[in-house]
Formats: sequence, structure tokens, C-alpha cells
Amino acid sequence: MKIALAQLNYHTGNFEQNTLKIIKTIAQAKTDGIDLVVFAELAVCGYPPRDFLEFKHFLTLCHQSISQIAAHCQDIACIVGCPTENAESEGKKLFNAAFFIQNGIVKSIAHKMLLPTYDVFDEYRYFEPDKTVQCIEFQNQKIALIICEDMWNVGRFLLYPDSPMQHLIKENPTLIINISASPFEYMQRKNRDYVLQKNIDLYHLPIVYVNQVGAQTELIFDGNSLAINADGSCATQLHSFEEQVAYVVFENGVLKPCGVAFADQKSDIEHIHDALVLGIRDYFSKMGFKKAILGLSGGVDSALVTYLAVAALGKANVHVLMMPSGYSSAHSVTDSEELIDNLGISGNNISIEQAFGVVLDTLKPYFLGLVPDVTEENIQSRLRMVLLMAFSNKMGYILLNTSNKSELAVGYGTLYGDMAGGLAVLGDLYKTQIYELCGFINRNSELIPSHILTKAPSAELRPDQKDSDSLPDYAVLDEILFAYIENRCSPNE
Amino acid sequence: MKIALAQLNYHTGNFEQNTLKIIKTIAQAKTDGIDLVVFAELAVCGYPPRDFLEFKHFLTLCHQSISQIAAHCQDIACIVGCPTENAESEGKKLFNAAFFIQNGIVKSIAHKMLLPTYDVFDEYRYFEPDKTVQCIEFQNQKIALIICEDMWNVGRFLLYPDSPMQHLIKENPTLIINISASPFEYMQRKNRDYVLQKNIDLYHLPIVYVNQVGAQTELIFDGNSLAINADGSCATQLHSFEEQVAYVVFENGVLKPCGVAFADQKSDIEHIHDALVLGIRDYFSKMGFKKAILGLSGGVDSALVTYLAVAALGKANVHVLMMPSGYSSAHSVTDSEELIDNLGISGNNISIEQAFGVVLDTLKPYFLGLVPDVTEENIQSRLRMVLLMAFSNKMGYILLNTSNKSELAVGYGTLYGDMAGGLAVLGDLYKTQIYELCGFINRNSELIPSHILTKAPSAELRPDQKDSDSLPDYAVLDEILFAYIENRCSPNE
Repeated sequence: MKIALAQLNYHTGNFEQNTLKIIKTIAQAKTDGIDLVVFAELAVCGYPPRDFLEFKHFLTLCHQSISQIAAHCQDIACIVGCPTENAESEGKKLFNAAFFIQNGIVKSIAHKMLLPTYDVFDEYRYFEPDKTVQCIEFQNQKIALIICEDMWNVGRFLLYPDSPMQHLIKENPTLIINISASPFEYMQRKNRDYVLQKNIDLYHLPIVYVNQVGAQTELIFDGNSLAINADGSCATQLHSFEEQVAYVVFENGVLKPCGVAFADQKSDIEHIHDALVLGIRDYFSKMGFKKAILGLSGGVDSALVTYLAVAALGKANVHVLMMPSGYSSAHSVTDSEELIDNLGISGNNISIEQAFGVVLDTLKPYFLGLVPDVTEENIQSRLRMVLLMAFSNKMGYILLNTSNKSELAVGYGTLYGDMAGGLAVLGDLYKTQIYELCGFINRNSELIPSHILTKAPSAELRPDQKDSDSLPDYAVLDEILFAYIENRCSPNE
Repeated sequence: MKIALAQLNYHTGNFEQNTLKIIKTIAQAKTDGIDLVVFAELAVCGYPPRDFLEFKHFLTLCHQSISQIAAHCQDIACIVGCPTENAESEGKKLFNAAFFIQNGIVKSIAHKMLLPTYDVFDEYRYFEPDKTVQCIEFQNQKIALIICEDMWNVGRFLLYPDSPMQHLIKENPTLIINISASPFEYMQRKNRDYVLQKNIDLYHLPIVYVNQVGAQTELIFDGNSLAINADGSCATQLHSFEEQVAYVVFENGVLKPCGVAFADQKSDIEHIHDALVLGIRDYFSKMGFKKAILGLSGGVDSALVTYLAVAALGKANVHVLMMPSGYSSAHSVTDSEELIDNLGISGNNISIEQAFGVVLDTLKPYFLGLVPDVTEENIQSRLRMVLLMAFSNKMGYILLNTSNKSELAVGYGTLYGDMAGGLAVLGDLYKTQIYELCGFINRNSELIPSHILTKAPSAELRPDQKDSDSLPDYAVLDEILFAYIENRCSPNE
């Protein structure tokens, strides 16, 4: 049996595009002599569909897509994720399902049993957990067909009192197929390898694992689909953050590469880099945007976002504003200009000094006798937002936000000022990770000017201001924040 | 048996204040000869605790509070909501529990079985549903102790395949006690009466229902606790949106008022009024804020928010800015001044004309040959935000947002402009409801100047602009929005 692992990038609610992509992949696979094409979890509607699932109309469109896909499954079978209705009067109205389609019809539908409802997941809001499971039969093979979380209830991730594989294994399946929508995070590859190995230890079966790739605003799916044997050998592993289709042969209980065997060799920091570039690219393409704008301060955060935006959208689609005030250092502009040259993008230098002066004059009668404080700092940041958003409104740019996770966590930023923007590109990156990522980007040549990476971080909103006036060193701060945010430590801990 | 229904306002994470409030209520009830005091769901930590539940430290503080409360339960018993750990290695780490405390110790703990995970609820993120239930015994009575959603799985709200009362009824209880954290919405009273009646029809038992009161930012709990008999007669119903403690006697299977019998007689629009006033008041008090500021445009939305802020915080704590531009009508200022007089608050009239001119000048070289459009409209709105936030930063005001649900739904507003603010007071009120609410407020005397209510809505951001230039009449628009947002209708429907 020849199996295709279809690692595709779906667009939530874009049924036309998703269906076309699926049908094209089936057609090509058929030409290539494939027997079974495996797509990702909820591929038909895109993952996560969230509250769209509460619209009956959305379900109607799901079913229409399935019909179209089924019509193309002649002399080839496919497994594709799609929500489906719960016929019972009790329980949630839907199941998260995997459709097995053969000879132009839906042969069977497997429902997800384990519904992640933690962290970024909220599947129990919409779906009823399945209680009955059954293997599917295809070409004299018995396939245990499960969906994403269904395989994660093992070892240190044990969470549910029951698992579908505990039931399916009794039918003596020959192969596990898992269709997933499993997002990227720093530990994800390590965790996924651990879970796959645990499943092999428990069930001694080869596994075909197909994950979606692509970003849905703040969620970025890495793909990394693979075919792995019961002895732990990997028949193929698809590249992370790329659309790919790989073929494997399943013969005598063993998965073997068929055609090109893929393997993913990227480092952790390269994964973060690729995730952020894909995150920007998909945010823009899926929302129907083309061009980005951002404010270039001369600091490391905006320099990094500019580089990432260029990598994602192309240099013709990134415009920057330098907006110095009387408190700006000379290097804030010269360093920015060097970056603009290095990246080959367009930019304007627009002083906020005059607008800042008039706003201070306007407020003067009401602030008599009050000393300058964070108010005046924030006014500068907010006036920069006014200029950036004017460019956005007038020319269709989308403002990229440059706040990092460390400063967001401690509130070191201006609401409606530098905290504005459609996508917070670095919102999940601690300041220390930002320097690490810049080092990776500069590994071959100095794209980000070295002075940006070596000078002390400063908001430059008052004379001689430094971040370290108000905050601990970022190496110290990030350790505290990590303990609090990621590890849920108490103040004393 | 004498029972106290303690309808209190808890503050999430404020263990000291919640515990003190609970202990004081127990002490007073003891003085008044009460046998059992009933508090609301998760009263000890406040509802909803959300991700605080992931901090072990938070659970430690919960247990410390329970110990303190137990120490005060001598010669009196109480039922109080608190999270507790799941001892099993599988399943979520916590239960949502009702502690029954007597003679200084926790006698038993009932776990919630039905965990709402829809709309504003996400309990399955944190809690494991209970599988075993048992009545508690007190003064020769058998009490079916259940928590909020546990009683809602009836009639048209049927959602779960099982219900705790189906098991508890087999023990022949004499009374149902339900502790809740059930938020206000337009249909809530009608739905709650329906659910109580369905429970009476099914189980033929009197019900003591204790709900919390108070707001947690966007959730507003109405209270409306009550004691109802198996014949449908109401022994007491506590006032909505107020902290109250009511006593009832339970004798020979019947609940009777003890002391003052309460009853809630408010109209639907009065409930909305009271909900919004409490919402503002609790947002400020629980966040540690005192003073509000907002921009007064001469329109109905900002007029209404000003009135509600005064009702919630007192006239000394509300400051307004009128910020006319060249496009502002004369009545935008005169109507606002009339409202300021009527409410007895302070305000300033600060023109944005000069600042607007300088920002246009600053941008002129970059916008050459481009016609004025929404860009210039948004600049005015954003400059008003800059002034409001400067007052906020300088003097500690919190900016109230005045956007209504209709304009938010269609994007008729300026991001980082009039969409700014800490609390969107009218964010869940359609424009047509806003007029209805203003009519209610003016029922006795004209607090909101009638011209504000009769003139055509306008953003006044370009010459002779009217909302109706871009939008359907609000009566038509609201019907469409209601069908889409509340009833999940498709475009064709």
C-alpha cells in the first residue's frame, strides 16, 4: 500500500481554497500510483475553526466540501479531517472527525475521543468526546485511525482516564494513522518524539502522523509530519514550516520511503526563525493584506521585526518610519538607516518634535504646576502611533507591533503607543531570545547592524533614559518571568 | 432548621477580603440563631478564577481560607464554594467543590459534575467532572448539594448525558441546595425560573439557590438568590445587583421567610441599568481605581456612559473632556455643557484644532496628491485619545470607552481612537437599547438633554457627516446584527 502524507497549509473558513488544494493533491497522488492520501485534522474547514462551528451554515459548507472531495476519490482513498454532527440529543452538537473516503463515498467516520481543553486549545467548547471507536479496513490492513490528542495520553502527558488506542489495539490493527493540528512551541519537537516513542512502546505498531502547517494569527503549526516504524526507524519526516507531500510504501508491516525521503535537521533557533516568518506571511496572506509598516527606533526589537517582515513579505512590501524626538540619540537614526540599506527597503524620517510641542502646549493650562513624568513619555509614543496609523489608513499598510514578551509582561510600554499594531511579531519571545535570534540572523553576514545589538536598550522618551533604570537586567528579568509565566511559580518561589 | 442565603460580592484572588466577609456573615448569622449559612460557588477565591487555578500557590491560599472559615463554624454550619485537588493521577487536577463545614471541621466535599464550557464559561479547562455524588446530612435532613450548572441539564437546556440529581434523588433528599456563580444576561431571569420549575417538576423538592453578586470586569453576576418550595411558592428572593443576606426556616418540608422576605420587582431595562452601574463600580473598586475620565462628544453614547459613571462612582470622581474640531457642531459643546450641569461634574473644553493642523502639516510631504479620506477622520479621533490618556497618566483617571455593540460589530470606530479605554461600558448594548436605556434614565426628569436623544447620530469627523451615510438605520442594522451575533444566522438567512 502506498500512502501519501499531505502536509498542507489550510485557511480557516476558506472552503473553496482548502477543497481545491485537497482535490489537487489527490489527483497528483493518483497519477503517482498512491492508494491512500492522508490529510490533517479538520483540514476541510481549517484549524482552529472556533466559534464558526456554532453556525449551521459553516457545517453545511463542510459537508459540501466532503462531497466534492469524495467525487475525486475514484481508485484512490483518502482520510481527511472535518467536523460532523452528533446525532444524539444530549452532548455537544458536533464531533471532531476523520472521514475515510473510498470509491467516491464516505466509508466510515472516526470521532476524536480526547479533546484538549487547556493552553491554546478549547475543543470541549464545541465537540463531544467519542465513546466508541473502531478500526478501518483498507487493502487487507486494519488501521487504527486517531486524531491528534488521541495519541497524547501517555507517560508524563497522561491526562484522561481512557484512550482510544486501548480499545483499538484489541482489534489487532497493523498500522496507526494520526491526523493532527498540533501547533509549534519551543518544546514541541521533543515532546512529540517522546509521545510517538511511548505509543510505539505501548502498541508496537508503525505510525503515520500527518500534521498541518501554517499560521492562524497567533497559532503557528509546524508540520513535521512523519512515518515511523515499530523499531523507531523513520521512513520519512517532512520539513517544518513548509507545505510538502511525501510518499511511503507500507509492506509487510514496515513503512519505507517512496521517492524522496525527507528529514528535518533545523536547530531550535532556526525553528523559531522559520515559525515567525511563516507567522507573518500567513497572517498577511490569510487576512488579505500585502504591505507592512512599522516604526524603526534604532533598537533591537524593531530591527528584528523589520528583518522578519522582509523575509516574510519581500523588501518591496515593507516600509518603515523613523520618528525621532528631541530625546532621540543620533545613532537611533544612523543605525536605522544602516538597517534600511542592508535590507533594501523604503523609509521616511519624520520628526515628531513639532506635534509633540503643540500637544504639550494644548495641555499646558491643565497641567500647571505638575512635573513631567510618564505622561510626556507616553505622548511621544502615541504620536508615533498616530503617524504610523495615518500611513496605514492612507496607503493600506498593516502596522506591525514590535513589543517583546519581557516588556509586555511587566507593562514596560505605552498603551495605544508602541503597544499598537495588528500582529505582535515578538509577543511570545523574551528579550534574551531576541538577541539570540539576531545572532542567528547575522551568522553569515551583518544584516542587523552590530551597534543595534551591543548598545544598552532604551525607550529614548526622556534624557539619557535606559531600560535598566526601571527594570532588572533582562537576563535576570527573563528568568523570573519564565518561572512565573511558564512554570506558574509563586512570588516566594 | 434556619438557613441563611448569603448573596455576597467576592473579589477574585482577594482571599483576605473574601474570607473576612464570609466569617462576618457567619458570626452575624450565629447571633441571629441561624443553623446553616450558604455561600456561592467558589466564594473563597471568587468566580471566575481562570488561570490563577494553575498556580499551586493559589490553591494553598484557598485551603488557608477554608481553615479560617472552619474555625468560626462552631454551633453553626456553612456551605461554601472552593476549588479542591483531584487525588487521581488521571483527569484534570482540580474539582469545583462545595465544602460542608460543621463543628470546626470540613465534614464533606461535594464536587461539581456538569462543567459549563461554552459562551463565557470554560470550566473544563480547569476542573474534572465528578462521577460520584452523595447527599449530605444535617439536623436529620438529607440535602442534595449541587453546584450551579448541575441543575441546568433539564428541558430545553439538556446538554449532558448524566445529571447529579438523577443519582442524588435515589437517597430521598428533603431539600436541594444549589450554590451558583451565574452571570446576568438579558434572558437570565426567565431562563433561571424555567430551570428551577423544571427541577421542581422532576424532583418535587424545595430549592435553596444562592448566587453571587458583583462584577468581574466583563462578567456581571446579578444575585437573585431565592428559596422556593415544591409547590412553586417563593419563600424569599433577594434583590438583584445588591449584597444581601436573607434567612428562611425549613420546617416540615417547607421553606418559609424568617424576618424580612425579599422580592425582586425590577423591569428588564432597570436590570440592564443596575448591571452596568454595578459593572463600572466593581471594575473600579476591584482594580484599585477611583476616578474616571471620558470624552464627551455631544452624542448619546458618551452622554449615557457619563451618567452611568456618575451613578457608579459619584460626581466627584468623573471628569469629562469636550474636544471639538472644525467639524464639530455648535450643539456638540452646548449639549455636553447641559449634561455636565445636569450631573454636576467637572469638564474641560480643549480644542484639537491646532494639534490636528500640525499633524496634517507633518504628514503633508508624504501624502501629496492624495485626497482626504478616513485617514484624516481617524487622526482627529486618535488625537482625542492622546489628550484623554495624558489626563489619565497625569492624574490617575481611568479612560472609559463609549463604543456601543452595533458600531463595534461593523467596525464603525477608530482603532486607538474612540475604541480606546479600560472598560467598554456599552460594549454589549446595541444602539437601539442605548436609546431605550436613556428613556428609562429620563423617566422622571431630563437628566440626559433631550436634544442628545433626538438629533441624528454623527461622528462629526468631516463636514455634515451622519452615521446613516455609511450604515443602515440602527433599527434595521441591530436586527441584522442580532440575527448574526446572537442567533448565528447565515448571510442568506
